[in-house]
Amino acid sequence: MSVTAPRGFRAAGVAAGIKGGEHRDVAVIVNDGPSRAAAAVFTTNRVKAAPVLWSQQVLAGGRVYAVVLNSGGANACTGAPGFQDTHATAERLADALEDSAAEIVVCSTGLIGERLPMPELLAGVDAAASTVARDGGLDAADAIRTTDSVSKIAFRRGGDGYTIGGMAKGAGMLAPSLATMLSVLTTDADLTSEQCDTLLRAATACTFERVDADGCTSTNDTVLLMASGASGVVPDTAEFARLLTEVCQDLCNQLIADAEGASKTIAIEVVGAASTTDAVAVGRSIARNALFKCAIYGEDPNWGRVLSAVGTTDAVFEPDHLNVAINGVWICRGGAVGDDRSKVDLKPREVTVTVDLSAGTEAATVWTTDLTAEYVHENSAYST
Amino acid sequence: MSVTAPRGFRAAGVAAGIKGGEHRDVAVIVNDGPSRAAAAVFTTNRVKAAPVLWSQQVLAGGRVYAVVLNSGGANACTGAPGFQDTHATAERLADALEDSAAEIVVCSTGLIGERLPMPELLAGVDAAASTVARDGGLDAADAIRTTDSVSKIAFRRGGDGYTIGGMAKGAGMLAPSLATMLSVLTTDADLTSEQCDTLLRAATACTFERVDADGCTSTNDTVLLMASGASGVVPDTAEFARLLTEVCQDLCNQLIADAEGASKTIAIEVVGAASTTDAVAVGRSIARNALFKCAIYGEDPNWGRVLSAVGTTDAVFEPDHLNVAINGVWICRGGAVGDDRSKVDLKPREVTVTVDLSAGTEAATVWTTDLTAEYVHENSAYST
Repeated sequence: MSVTAPRGFRAAGVAAGIKGGEHRDVAVIVNDGPSRAAAAVFTTNRVKAAPVLWSQQVLAGGRVYAVVLNSGGANACTGAPGFQDTHATAERLADALEDSAAEIVVCSTGLIGERLPMPELLAGVDAAASTVARDGGLDAADAIRTTDSVSKIAFRRGGDGYTIGGMAKGAGMLAPSLATMLSVLTTDADLTSEQCDTLLRAATACTFERVDADGCTSTNDTVLLMASGASGVVPDTAEFARLLTEVCQDLCNQLIADAEGASKTIAIEVVGAASTTDAVAVGRSIARNALFKCAIYGEDPNWGRVLSAVGTTDAVFEPDHLNVAINGVWICRGGAVGDDRSKVDLKPREVTVTVDLSAGTEAATVWTTDLTAEYVHENSAYST
Repeated sequence: MSVTAPRGFRAAGVAAGIKGGEHRDVAVIVNDGPSRAAAAVFTTNRVKAAPVLWSQQVLAGGRVYAVVLNSGGANACTGAPGFQDTHATAERLADALEDSAAEIVVCSTGLIGERLPMPELLAGVDAAASTVARDGGLDAADAIRTTDSVSKIAFRRGGDGYTIGGMAKGAGMLAPSLATMLSVLTTDADLTSEQCDTLLRAATACTFERVDADGCTSTNDTVLLMASGASGVVPDTAEFARLLTEVCQDLCNQLIADAEGASKTIAIEVVGAASTTDAVAVGRSIARNALFKCAIYGEDPNWGRVLSAVGTTDAVFEPDHLNVAINGVWICRGGAVGDDRSKVDLKPREVTVTVDLSAGTEAATVWTTDLTAEYVHENSAYST
């Protein structure tokens, strides 16, 4: 159902020849209103791609009419000419839609450091703009894939008759903040741009911000929320917050399940923390520990590597009070050997590591993947 | 020449059966004085192995008579019984040497979370203590190897007739602070324990602290400096500092060259930094970027991944003023594409990445390795 599940949105995805061949590589999503309320969160990387710099300016106004996304090139580290390319892309879509470029967001994904092939891209913008339709959500989700093996889409329906839809892409460079990816979320609920901002930040903080596949933060991350108001429903804020978070979590689950070269999906549950900040910090440290990730790949319940990762954080804990379970078996108790490690079954793709800091009542889960030879192969041959 | 290059030291390395087979796994180094001045730096990991907790207490006194090291087990995350094992090991050597355990350092390396086989270890302590000799330095260096393919040793001679010797081990879990390893440095210069401390901290700060093979900080890191004073020479402090740093750097070069599964040795030179702290932070961020390390493995001069790693730091820089050279070719200028990337020759094992932050005059070099399929294989099968 993707981004066109809610009323008021049309979308398209076309093959413009940027990626070569018949692969779709340009998507356009149009918000027909009546509202154009919107908000976005962007990468925290200080090296930001041209489309991020552009879109940050657009979002300052709190209104978005349309978004154009391309795969096949990130338009990052391309200097002033790259920014002009983004500007020209927005202008081209504005012309096609007979509106202002000031309310058009641009997203790009692909290789860093290369200019986009503008004739192909601009022709693709025209083609997509002329074919946007209520059933175009799947094509749009397909067009933003890079190394993604599948499209990622999700939706939820609210009790009062509104809908939230979403699409995402991201398979490598998956780390906060944000987990490297592009995502567009749409709703026909009636929200102000301020509400969009508050709700989006809350939802991404506990979803996209807690996906960490390879510790690498991209230059292009963007999560955009657009509210058309077409349902006429002013939603219950608590319910909307819950459903938006569910859509984000659904997309995150799809991202982590499709992460480049991964053979395991790992949920790192940190419990007994003095604060949520501590729990996230510990989860992220484990998620980024290369030796731990190799051990899971090898189906080795190596809790020592978990403890050594915990020990690099400044979270509140006592080393002698740490407990670690892998897939439910508490193989480390009190900072030392616990139950029989041979009872741990690491054959399934889904792995849960539970770390009890014994320091409080807060908890958080960080999602990551194992580190595999396939990841190395895929990422050693990407740009050549 | 190892740790017995300076006068006043005897050493031995024996096969005690901890690792199984005929591999040496217990080393003893004795300082016959007349001085027992010493200092050490230890892992910053808050999960510290029993021998680290023990040795920190010993070093509080500033005097070390002997050190016993074992491979085949880290004695980390072993709780109170593990600490008692370390205590018993020190007492056994004290008995054999007819001295006090309070001046005996213990170092262990190997798998985390398993108790040491004490009968074998204690018999090995006896055997090593009874065979320590002036020519035992090489055997000691051999006994501390884990996945190290070769022993690491170094020495320098001072102009006034003193010598500095050293040995080290470390191939995985190689990251500050410290780069995961054990190292013992010896000298026959006449130094106070305070001088040892100051000189050792200065030397390790720009050597061991700047090796970052895999971002993983161990539970057992120890660098110990013992000064026998046997040469009778009170060294020129500046010269001694320089030579001690050279010995440390020499050992670091050997560590990084032997890092697990690496096919490239990468020096990340950060120049034009506003501060040394900034330069080290940028270098470390690049050294820990999995995608960059995969690219070098694939001999792909992917400067975009360098910039995206720089962008995650809070160092002083402007994205549009960043320049990057790989093996001398400035493929990124002003934050965008620079010279022809096809001119970069990444065939040699030695790779130099130079990042110019254009923000000042400070510089630092961080050493790392590429991320290879072999690293994954080696570390996914370590404990099973």
